[in-house]
Amino acid sequence: MGLTYQTMEWLGTGLRLLDQRALPANLRYLEATTIDVLVDAINTLAVRGAPALGAIGAYGVVIAMDQGAQEGWDSERLEKEIDRVRDARPTAVNLAWGVDRVRPLMAQGRDAVLDEAHAVVREDEVANRAMGVRGADWLLARLGDRKLRLLTHCNTGTLATTGWGTALGVIRELAARDRIEVVYVDETRPLLQGARLTAWELFQDGIAHLVQSDGAATSTIMRGLVDAALIGADRVVANGDTANKIGSVGVALACADAGIPFLVVAPESSVDLDTAHGDDIQIEMRNGDEILNFAGQRTAPLESEGFNPAFDVTPARLVTAFVCESAVLEVSNGQTPGMKWGRES
Amino acid sequence: MGLTYQTMEWLGTGLRLLDQRALPANLRYLEATTIDVLVDAINTLAVRGAPALGAIGAYGVVIAMDQGAQEGWDSERLEKEIDRVRDARPTAVNLAWGVDRVRPLMAQGRDAVLDEAHAVVREDEVANRAMGVRGADWLLARLGDRKLRLLTHCNTGTLATTGWGTALGVIRELAARDRIEVVYVDETRPLLQGARLTAWELFQDGIAHLVQSDGAATSTIMRGLVDAALIGADRVVANGDTANKIGSVGVALACADAGIPFLVVAPESSVDLDTAHGDDIQIEMRNGDEILNFAGQRTAPLESEGFNPAFDVTPARLVTAFVCESAVLEVSNGQTPGMKWGRES
Repeated sequence: MGLTYQTMEWLGTGLRLLDQRALPANLRYLEATTIDVLVDAINTLAVRGAPALGAIGAYGVVIAMDQGAQEGWDSERLEKEIDRVRDARPTAVNLAWGVDRVRPLMAQGRDAVLDEAHAVVREDEVANRAMGVRGADWLLARLGDRKLRLLTHCNTGTLATTGWGTALGVIRELAARDRIEVVYVDETRPLLQGARLTAWELFQDGIAHLVQSDGAATSTIMRGLVDAALIGADRVVANGDTANKIGSVGVALACADAGIPFLVVAPESSVDLDTAHGDDIQIEMRNGDEILNFAGQRTAPLESEGFNPAFDVTPARLVTAFVCESAVLEVSNGQTPGMKWGRES
Repeated sequence: MGLTYQTMEWLGTGLRLLDQRALPANLRYLEATTIDVLVDAINTLAVRGAPALGAIGAYGVVIAMDQGAQEGWDSERLEKEIDRVRDARPTAVNLAWGVDRVRPLMAQGRDAVLDEAHAVVREDEVANRAMGVRGADWLLARLGDRKLRLLTHCNTGTLATTGWGTALGVIRELAARDRIEVVYVDETRPLLQGARLTAWELFQDGIAHLVQSDGAATSTIMRGLVDAALIGADRVVANGDTANKIGSVGVALACADAGIPFLVVAPESSVDLDTAHGDDIQIEMRNGDEILNFAGQRTAPLESEGFNPAFDVTPARLVTAFVCESAVLEVSNGQTPGMKWGRES
């Protein structure tokens, strides 16, 4: 049921992106054939979501090579433009990961880079499907084979990836098994990725859901209305500390208080073993105007200033388990990404 | 500095209310001379805030008596109209408290009721000033005599009371002593009482503040940017469980995790000793459209539903201290409203 939509599609001369700023009112696309357009699309969140940004990073190198060939850039300029893509947003590790994955292939020519970018997309959806199955299996084993009441924050679906989703992929897998009673969707201020994007994806899939304010999440959990909460991740570091959309750590605290599972669902491309602790993650500070205005209307006094960190860090102690494509790591059993891959600090 | 504004003023023939729906863009007033207008003003949050609603309940009886005299209501109709005011919103105890305080005086005539309503207003501001001093003294004794970084949720200022404020009264008292570094203001979705009202009051007073999304509060606290958080209360029950604006309990959880004080500042008129536990507090469920729309624009898919509890309950174990007009009760010392007034269940 529902529409067919694709977060991104390579068109031969550039990348067609579903413009997520216009959802849910309008389903429209933009075409990125230059680095300026691509970086603007990243900065304004026309495309967002850590796994999606991994693919964007890879395709961005192709766009830079094509534009550079057309405009006669020297190699210094080319590298600088690629770095603009790599550094467009600081918190999600995937953007840099995607650029770095294809960069060594530039010497083999543009088509080798493009092939690798396509491979990133294929592997991402395979990883998402695997996480969906692992996460669903884990939840049903832990909570019993029954319909679950879940809570999620921000958007982690097809729109945040190249297909299917991470935390939302687990929810989709559970829905396919008829094991969803309802999904509480945090609206996710300031840009409402929950109300605009997650609710839209759940509606397309016919999955029962309720949109709530972010402030409601804690009491919904503490009142016993939720069996488990699931989020994605923009960066998981070696000790398991997890950067994700602002508001995530509040959900984690509530789950710990209520004694229900809090799962982080993220592909291994979101794991950054070079960073030991969450304190070392750079948190993107966005313009305070995102808080002070809405739909062109000023909501706060003109004289007020906004404080607008885009992400927060959930300490590993508050995570019940990490769901990756190759494993479910249970923190209470001492499993963290660093432990799993032999890089615990 | 700033404007002069009054939340409510008795005009002889009715109650002039500052229409809080229009702030901060417009400073406008409405005049309630009938029960229909008054109940609509309460329901649509033109006037809100537990202490303010106490006075509204008292004046509401006068308005009902005046309208009843004019329209020839019998006593049954009169009592029914008064009950409409009393029950207009269920969670704040003050509305019923205000009605019940003046009701016994009806036999003495309308002017006796009006005098008592005026007394409610006078006593509320005196109580607020006392809470401000007690709260400020307590915080400076606990945290050291220095400039503080505070966080508050929703609006508890002049606009939520008949003057000065509860939690915001403490902040004002600290500002008068030059002991405020900055106030983090949660925007307070869905109706933005923080961004629209608290920021407006702080700007009028020249107090430094930053408006943030509700989801940001947890990490702002856990990152060590806040020395203490203060909220008001719509109802404090005998064991200390506290109903307040949705999102409050998340702030309390974060303060507990970070080891910083979480204060509930509320007059004794907000204390309900007849209710033993927070589980017994009726939580007002408001229309889901408040979540799904903003400024006349639909933000979620048309097919989505909203989940919109207006309040949550903070368990007493998460409250560091209650600041009332007569005392500061420290929960860790076993002090709760029920203990203090000999009604612990």
